[in-house]
Amino acid sequence: MRVLGIDPGLRNLGWGIIELHGNRLSHVANGHCKSRLGKLPGRLLELHQQLTEVLKKYRPHTAAVEQTFVNQDAKSTLKLGHARGIAMLVPAQFGLEVGEYAPNAIKKTVVGVGHADKDQIGLMVRMQLPGSNPIGTDSADALAVAICHAFHLQSRGALAEAMHA
Amino acid sequence: MRVLGIDPGLRNLGWGIIELHGNRLSHVANGHCKSRLGKLPGRLLELHQQLTEVLKKYRPHTAAVEQTFVNQDAKSTLKLGHARGIAMLVPAQFGLEVGEYAPNAIKKTVVGVGHADKDQIGLMVRMQLPGSNPIGTDSADALAVAICHAFHLQSRGALAEAMHA
Repeated sequence: MRVLGIDPGLRNLGWGIIELHGNRLSHVANGHCKSRLGKLPGRLLELHQQLTEVLKKYRPHTAAVEQTFVNQDAKSTLKLGHARGIAMLVPAQFGLEVGEYAPNAIKKTVVGVGHADKDQIGLMVRMQLPGSNPIGTDSADALAVAICHAFHLQSRGALAEAMHA
Repeated sequence: MRVLGIDPGLRNLGWGIIELHGNRLSHVANGHCKSRLGKLPGRLLELHQQLTEVLKKYRPHTAAVEQTFVNQDAKSTLKLGHARGIAMLVPAQFGLEVGEYAPNAIKKTVVGVGHADKDQIGLMVRMQLPGSNPIGTDSADALAVAICHAFHLQSRGALAEAMHA
């Protein structure tokens, strides 16, 4: 099963795709969609077009988006909401289920603790996905989202199997 | 020129279309896109599909979206951001310029004062667009956004004419 993870952002929207075979993970691709400074509608269009290309090219079976940390700065929160709307819309347009995971849940799955920093996440992503060499922290975070989603799907699958045994 | 106004919201996304002939306005259509309660990606997909249909059917030449009032409740702000992202994306996908106007600027244009309430807006929209009978406050607000955008385009046009005279 091919899993897409997304770390939403207006300037850089990180994405990462991994393959789940049984209980083994492997890296497929990662990168980020970028929007140039300018008016918001044009930027959202750029993100939508680039993310659509990623889905067309890699045809993931399922997707997950990082839950946004809502901060004190309402203007930034609103801007991020716009980008996150696009991040959720595109996989839905391809008929995919879209999971959502809180940053702490992602860190706990990937690093083992909920308070890991960006460097630790990058390190663990590289260890779990040899050859991934994520381009920047957005892509590393997106791969971490994909790993988290894969683990949750696996354990759900194992649970379903156990229930039908 | 055909002008689309949008009042963004996740549950009800109001839209209104008016026609600008010289300095006369007339009503074309109004309504709202609705998303059913459920997971966010599915709701955004519903809004995207319905708004796309509106643009396909009425082919506006330009669009405007109400600037969101950023409030204290960060979670609501984020949710609204998602819906607003869709509201800006769809017209951009049709190659339209998308204007943004603050609620006060819209009220000032339509009612004459920046602190008008919903009822006053609805009343003035009905007066300026005979036969519009907006379906609910979201559609009335969307028509108000369209009127505001039309007035700004008109004055820009008049200014350009004056400069080239």
